[in-house]
Amino acid sequence: MYQPAAPHLRLLRLLRDQGPVSRAELGDRLELSRPRLLAEVERLVAAEMIVEAGMAASRGGRRSTLVELHPRLRFAAVDLGATSINVEVTNGRLEPLAAYQEAADIRSGPRAILLRVNELLAKARTDGVYDRLDAVGIGVPGPVSFRDGVPVSPPIMPGWDRYPVRELLTQEYGCPAVVDNDVNIMAIGERHGGVAHSVDDFLFVKIGTGVGCGIHLNGGVFRGVDGCAGDIGHIQVESHGPACSCGNTGCLEALFGGAALARDALAAARSGESPALAARLEALGGAASGGATLTARDVAIGAAEGDITCIRLIRDGGRRVGSVLATLVSFANPSMIVIGGGLAQLGHVLLAEIRSVVYRRSLPLATGNLPVVLSELGSRAGVTGATVLASDALFEQAS
Amino acid sequence: MYQPAAPHLRLLRLLRDQGPVSRAELGDRLELSRPRLLAEVERLVAAEMIVEAGMAASRGGRRSTLVELHPRLRFAAVDLGATSINVEVTNGRLEPLAAYQEAADIRSGPRAILLRVNELLAKARTDGVYDRLDAVGIGVPGPVSFRDGVPVSPPIMPGWDRYPVRELLTQEYGCPAVVDNDVNIMAIGERHGGVAHSVDDFLFVKIGTGVGCGIHLNGGVFRGVDGCAGDIGHIQVESHGPACSCGNTGCLEALFGGAALARDALAAARSGESPALAARLEALGGAASGGATLTARDVAIGAAEGDITCIRLIRDGGRRVGSVLATLVSFANPSMIVIGGGLAQLGHVLLAEIRSVVYRRSLPLATGNLPVVLSELGSRAGVTGATVLASDALFEQAS
Repeated sequence: MYQPAAPHLRLLRLLRDQGPVSRAELGDRLELSRPRLLAEVERLVAAEMIVEAGMAASRGGRRSTLVELHPRLRFAAVDLGATSINVEVTNGRLEPLAAYQEAADIRSGPRAILLRVNELLAKARTDGVYDRLDAVGIGVPGPVSFRDGVPVSPPIMPGWDRYPVRELLTQEYGCPAVVDNDVNIMAIGERHGGVAHSVDDFLFVKIGTGVGCGIHLNGGVFRGVDGCAGDIGHIQVESHGPACSCGNTGCLEALFGGAALARDALAAARSGESPALAARLEALGGAASGGATLTARDVAIGAAEGDITCIRLIRDGGRRVGSVLATLVSFANPSMIVIGGGLAQLGHVLLAEIRSVVYRRSLPLATGNLPVVLSELGSRAGVTGATVLASDALFEQAS
Repeated sequence: MYQPAAPHLRLLRLLRDQGPVSRAELGDRLELSRPRLLAEVERLVAAEMIVEAGMAASRGGRRSTLVELHPRLRFAAVDLGATSINVEVTNGRLEPLAAYQEAADIRSGPRAILLRVNELLAKARTDGVYDRLDAVGIGVPGPVSFRDGVPVSPPIMPGWDRYPVRELLTQEYGCPAVVDNDVNIMAIGERHGGVAHSVDDFLFVKIGTGVGCGIHLNGGVFRGVDGCAGDIGHIQVESHGPACSCGNTGCLEALFGGAALARDALAAARSGESPALAARLEALGGAASGGATLTARDVAIGAAEGDITCIRLIRDGGRRVGSVLATLVSFANPSMIVIGGGLAQLGHVLLAEIRSVVYRRSLPLATGNLPVVLSELGSRAGVTGATVLASDALFEQAS
């Protein structure tokens, strides 16, 4: 029932994703008549979206003019995590020209965080990366009303509820801005330039401080009626499990994720159950000090050294994630599952356990051809997806 | 990113869903210029899809010609359940002109079942309901490759795997045919003429002999990459639960659904735990005979009479369905959940328990405006959806 996107949108996306293309090939690829194509090209040249750039190699007949995105196009991408800010500025082809990454606490509130974002983008301008931005894409770690461009009741983002993020960015930079959930932009990024390249129906599971899922269906992100589709961190996996920050007990996120793993690792170090973690804690200042903390990275190192408790912590977590994913696979019958986020560094021990549960517990028909794989883009998945959204927002306006 | 459907498709659907419409109103509703509309109408009249039918009441100026679907249009709908055949023949507006319902065991295989379908449709022709059919829609109780028009690895349908159902119906009736999963057609039916009217994103949960879910997203059914999306009956809800026909343990369907409830009701009757069920079994021929069986209807009657065990059986089942739905609500963030299938007759005791678990266990943001309601169409949901699919198949060919 769906029709293809408008010709100008397909043309601009093609140049973004493939680079310079000859007019002859554009006509073939977009199935446009020559006069129609020339009119589109002329219009987009006038709008300073594209330029003509020399002649293509001959395809046997006359040589055809090359067309490419305007070299002046600049997109900004911002990926706000619970504890981090990632910013990139790219050209029209989404190639990064500048990148900044730093720690930041999302709970500092929207004024402080967006001020810092503006400072990082000002630095890029001072460094000569851009004169003006053509579109901005930003991801935040909570539910978003995509239509309104605001966070909606985000549990770990005090002060951000319905804060006019899109409006402020649009005013600040005088260009289109798009706001989305951080896991959604990671899914879009992985589809653009990662392991899910050109896959239409897949789940991107982020296991970071918390746990979330980007749902990519029919070639686009599915956000749900309130913008919170994919918020799988609070699915109950143990009826008498530990208390969760959301007020329920036994949520996936309360049992596994960066915060839960840090808690369990510290307990295993203090009790002496894990010699590797105890030694690591000692090196960090000692169990006695009380202030030292362990992270997923310490558990990953311990597991690589063969520490039984570290391996068990990862496998227990993988089993819990796997049980939720088995349910979602039976429900959504996706083409692929991509595992990303900080805890993807736990690597193949985690992946093997997740696969084992998914393949055992889901419908055989749904898992027959189902790859469960690690993210290729890692920490760049989010900013990559944000530039895709930003460029689409600009291109859609070019009609 | 999606464009509206082609004008002729929107025109035909409008006449199907709303009845006769004046040309003037059609032009307004479809946003077509007068010459374009007249050309479309002329073409569809020539194709015998529509007719002009007198003059509309004046809207102030000249009276406009009324247009309606051709009165000769006939659609056949077939809803095959695990233990039943429902057939309807409708006119172009999907109003039933003949309906047949009878018991049948899907395990009899495709030849026997489709022969019986043909006999029922032949009866309708003999009775003068139609001369020829314009499209046929059929639903089957298992996964379907919608593109190929065949069942795919259906667990409870021996002999049906990749049986060319669509091809045979197309040959038999010389018209387009569409094959889909039974729960998908129920969801489509409920959206067309039931409680989910015009709702774009909702879940239709069928609790019959087994349990399944129709997923309606972005205005269409989501079928998954292998056609088995929504197959939620084999989601594990108890790690040490009873064995399921699929080979796993603790599946939702092994704990609740028509078959599981019949098993539990019989056990409660025989043990004497439920006086109401024991009395019912006695009336049916006695516990001693061993051949008598109880059904969901007996449990519903017992619950209405206040039998504690019957109420508990329903509430236990509702809790299990609710726990799965809570997960799916957090994942998909739908606008509505519709409960249908034979066990919907358990009514408000079941519904109250499902609601209680969904509202307690899902994200508050996702349940803020989430109705959980019973199907309005009941046993007619499936045939209604099948006629919608059949008519769409015909209309799409009318380009």
